[in-house]
Amino acid sequence: MASVLQRQRPVSPVRPEEVSATRQPTERASTLPPRVYHDPEVFQYERDAWFSADWLCVGREEDAAEPGEYFLTQLFGENIIVVRSDDRQLRAFHNVCRHRGATIVEEPCGKLVRFQCPYHAWIYDLKGNLRPPRHTETLENFDLSQNGLFQVRLDTWAGFIFLNLDPQAAPLAEHLGEFPNHWQPFPIAELRRSQRMEYHVKANWKALVENYSECYHCPGVHPLLNHLTPYNLGGYLPGSGNWAASWMELTSDYETLSIDGYLHGRKRIPGMRPEDLKRVYYAFIWPNLLYSLHPDFLMIHLVWPINAEESTVICELFFHPETMAEPDFDPSGPKEFWDLTNRQDWHVCELQQAGTASRSYVPGRYSIIEKMVHSFDAMVADRYANDGQRTVVVREAIKNWGGARTKRRSQPAELRESAD
Amino acid sequence: MASVLQRQRPVSPVRPEEVSATRQPTERASTLPPRVYHDPEVFQYERDAWFSADWLCVGREEDAAEPGEYFLTQLFGENIIVVRSDDRQLRAFHNVCRHRGATIVEEPCGKLVRFQCPYHAWIYDLKGNLRPPRHTETLENFDLSQNGLFQVRLDTWAGFIFLNLDPQAAPLAEHLGEFPNHWQPFPIAELRRSQRMEYHVKANWKALVENYSECYHCPGVHPLLNHLTPYNLGGYLPGSGNWAASWMELTSDYETLSIDGYLHGRKRIPGMRPEDLKRVYYAFIWPNLLYSLHPDFLMIHLVWPINAEESTVICELFFHPETMAEPDFDPSGPKEFWDLTNRQDWHVCELQQAGTASRSYVPGRYSIIEKMVHSFDAMVADRYANDGQRTVVVREAIKNWGGARTKRRSQPAELRESAD
Amino acid sequence: MASVLQRQRPVSPVRPEEVSATRQPTERASTLPPRVYHDPEVFQYERDAWFSADWLCVGREEDAAEPGEYFLTQLFGENIIVVRSDDRQLRAFHNVCRHRGATIVEEPCGKLVRFQCPYHAWIYDLKGNLRPPRHTETLENFDLSQNGLFQVRLDTWAGFIFLNLDPQAAPLAEHLGEFPNHWQPFPIAELRRSQRMEYHVKANWKALVENYSECYHCPGVHPLLNHLTPYNLGGYLPGSGNWAASWMELTSDYETLSIDGYLHGRKRIPGMRPEDLKRVYYAFIWPNLLYSLHPDFLMIHLVWPINAEESTVICELFFHPETMAEPDFDPSGPKEFWDLTNRQDWHVCELQQAGTASRSYVPGRYSIIEKMVHSFDAMVADRYANDGQRTVVVREAIKNWGGARTKRRSQPAELRESAD
Repeated sequence: MASVLQRQRPVSPVRPEEVSATRQPTERASTLPPRVYHDPEVFQYERDAWFSADWLCVGREEDAAEPGEYFLTQLFGENIIVVRSDDRQLRAFHNVCRHRGATIVEEPCGKLVRFQCPYHAWIYDLKGNLRPPRHTETLENFDLSQNGLFQVRLDTWAGFIFLNLDPQAAPLAEHLGEFPNHWQPFPIAELRRSQRMEYHVKANWKALVENYSECYHCPGVHPLLNHLTPYNLGGYLPGSGNWAASWMELTSDYETLSIDGYLHGRKRIPGMRPEDLKRVYYAFIWPNLLYSLHPDFLMIHLVWPINAEESTVICELFFHPETMAEPDFDPSGPKEFWDLTNRQDWHVCELQQAGTASRSYVPGRYSIIEKMVHSFDAMVADRYANDGQRTVVVREAIKNWGGARTKRRSQPAELRESAD
Repeated sequence: MASVLQRQRPVSPVRPEEVSATRQPTERASTLPPRVYHDPEVFQYERDAWFSADWLCVGREEDAAEPGEYFLTQLFGENIIVVRSDDRQLRAFHNVCRHRGATIVEEPCGKLVRFQCPYHAWIYDLKGNLRPPRHTETLENFDLSQNGLFQVRLDTWAGFIFLNLDPQAAPLAEHLGEFPNHWQPFPIAELRRSQRMEYHVKANWKALVENYSECYHCPGVHPLLNHLTPYNLGGYLPGSGNWAASWMELTSDYETLSIDGYLHGRKRIPGMRPEDLKRVYYAFIWPNLLYSLHPDFLMIHLVWPINAEESTVICELFFHPETMAEPDFDPSGPKEFWDLTNRQDWHVCELQQAGTASRSYVPGRYSIIEKMVHSFDAMVADRYANDGQRTVVVREAIKNWGGARTKRRSQPAELRESAD
Repeated sequence: MASVLQRQRPVSPVRPEEVSATRQPTERASTLPPRVYHDPEVFQYERDAWFSADWLCVGREEDAAEPGEYFLTQLFGENIIVVRSDDRQLRAFHNVCRHRGATIVEEPCGKLVRFQCPYHAWIYDLKGNLRPPRHTETLENFDLSQNGLFQVRLDTWAGFIFLNLDPQAAPLAEHLGEFPNHWQPFPIAELRRSQRMEYHVKANWKALVENYSECYHCPGVHPLLNHLTPYNLGGYLPGSGNWAASWMELTSDYETLSIDGYLHGRKRIPGMRPEDLKRVYYAFIWPNLLYSLHPDFLMIHLVWPINAEESTVICELFFHPETMAEPDFDPSGPKEFWDLTNRQDWHVCELQQAGTASRSYVPGRYSIIEKMVHSFDAMVADRYANDGQRTVVVREAIKNWGGARTKRRSQPAELRESAD
């Protein structure tokens, strides 16, 4: 296998001054400048500087479990084969023949013993090595070892497969930082996909991550969710890395987020501690993975930008294999709940996308319970500014949004008032 | 309410030399350079320098007659609420929440007591003032009076509502100049909308205004119209302002423009003088309002550019309320006539749009009866040139296109010949 | 008729260094840089510098056989009338009125006695001369002879009509060079169109010409074609000019390329010599005409670029009139064969188009039997480089791809091996 030439790092079209108002304490900060949700030049920068150089989750190990099993994934114009080679290692290759450049594999997933280009029948093994093509014997300087498939960096965590188009990127573990620590009690790698929902949303990918990161909108937008987990009960999780996380509390005797709030016999994920039984955890991992652990299932959203104004969102639910093996296993309650909630979210994100396109719009202010939105926006702003400074958004559970569970009675007055 | 920051005036991409051939007396002048009908850069200039800084007609007072009644209008990417506030004043606001920028009102028209953003439930009164949002109490420098809806300038004439996105623009009255004088005999403000037709036309907006401004094409394109009002009978109206107007004469015993030329009992608009009974008046008001007074109805066309190559045209017919109140009121004759005539026009405008895209096309010459086209093109050319000089196109009724009605017998020979 | 002003020659966006690896002997050469199949700027250059200045085949003399008969053709945004004038000469005109620029003729083909603009009824005769329009009598400097239709250069060879948008281009005969010599034995001008197939292909036009120029892909992509004419039997035709040609050999007792390989009574084209009976000839004439002579029919493909990523391909079959006059004339065998083969080709061209868009793709190497592809790519590269140097790709029949027909037994070993 050969390696793709390193490309030049693109230059940010957003100057530090343009985002300085976002890089302030939340009480003084303003939201991101509106053009970053609309300007194709900004989008191109994000695609080239971030999505082409950050670790992106593209699937689960279960999707290529046995040697020869593969799936295709599309990363910003790059068609990539993720395959389990004969040595049981996962590898990723650009799905492009080294001869005249044809796409080699057309079926989105399957099992193969080798890769054969459908145009002139050139053959590569599962490790990407080219076999000698006919009618090339008399060529000068034609080195087979230099004409294998181009490889893409691949790493895994907890069953998730991440790719990185940048050969120079820091390792995945460094990217995740202390994120994995929070989930060590749980057998995340053992979970298996049960449900998959796909959405087309007319909104910038950042608006979708922002929407995920606050529940200020829940009383009006999600009456059911707000009934099960009131918007002002919960707290933030600490830790370093390119992520932020929080939890919300199930009230009354509710057991999970589903259309009626109950488990109906579904087993909880092994490893749940007493406090986990009443919590739903929400995290974003930079740039586009949303991770939500419920007592009985894990949900992820992958937010894939199409362009500055449109995104595809994939939402998947994972359960423990033992739960799925129960004869009466029924995931429809969680699925219906989240399909409803997702669609409510996409609608308001689309309204925000439309409104921020107005020439009249100027950055607004964060309410005090939008600190996780502010955390994400600060990551965005820091990366635009690219000046080596890192904005810290202070998030203390009690002060910020209604207090941790044990402090419910001592919430500040303004938060009690605002409970729906 | 806050006011939108003034934007920098865009620079014209069309140099004075490029339009100097249009800024000549009609006998020597050439039509506009073809690229102004096709070049996206020219269109962007027109949108930013003209449509974003000129008074644009967006509706009638009847569309928001009572307090709380509103309608939405889209002005070149700006979504605007036109509302009758509690004090019975008409106001216009950008339909954008000052918090995270969501579109506030989604229904295209209706009646409301306040504006409430569907995302985080921020509330504004009908004058655009923000009410205190929850969870913003501890913010620093968060001034409610600076966070109201952004207002858009609004003015009215004769029942028409005009908006102007430019806070510095001269008043509507100055824009209209002496135009209103011609219609003082008639109760234009009292008329009510009866019919509405909407068209998508693959032609530049200027080609549509030009088409409206001459009847040189009528013998071939509009046999019925040309039968009722022969193309070479009529005259021009004098007066200053950003408009031009003419009239055409109904021949034989025809009473109006409709599918058979007769009123069939429809009352004429009050105030008609003897000469008005046989006339149809045509005016364009810069940039995109076409105004046609018939004995029994007023017609307007609004020509809304979509891009350099496409436009939406709205055509509406207004009658006097007393006429509409008649038990046997039937507007189908005028409507059918104009729907037919409109479609004939759109077809030739689309042919012109297609043909002028050819690299071979060079500006042509105006015939002597295209002086009102030339007037419009001169306004266009003057605004591109932006050099303070104003081109005057001399339009004398008799010399220009067949003479006033009282001079029919003494038309110049070449005009008699060319009558169909 | 007036003549269109000469436009400035566009500047190549591809520097000589970028294509130097293609301008080498085949054994050392690399394919074209991938961006030339994708970059809109490169496409615009090709359109302006090549397609607007080269001779392009747009039809056959039979399409406008009698005076007044015409057809319209679209050349890269130019709508052109090809007409047989009263003097029986073929002429081509821009289909654009000199007045306000409307398209004059709307029906794609037919018979007319004059051209009359549908907008203001200006009239031109079949030689493009403007008749005096009414209401232009008093204009200054309005010279009828300067306001005729703009003419386009037209020439013919063997019944094919070629146009050239560049008034300064060298004559068609110079462009074709020695190409016509090879077809003098055959009455090509007498052949008549029998079948027409049209395809939309998501591939750059050059990928389609390349695909036509080699049979390295035939064993895998075209099992039937490869059965009738094995990919490694054939040779190249010599000669100068902007073209390249080869032939392939029908094996066994096969008589032509059709769904079963037999003539079923269809007569061969007159003039066939003994060696022609077992040959199918393939030629490309720069830039986009593919010419394939079979024993009983002539096939052409016209590859019309839409943009850098899409093309329209027209495929037509021509037979001798005597063959077509036979009561049982049936062209369905050839048509079905080529429709199948065409679609197989488009599919792999689309795969190549998709794959070469990858940032990972770097130019590949030509196999030794892709010399005609290399010839075409070298013409492309020479024209980008525009440095006066001309790359010669040596094509000797035997060495290059399995030897001429008489040498079958003495093919080099590697070619025998690779026969399917």
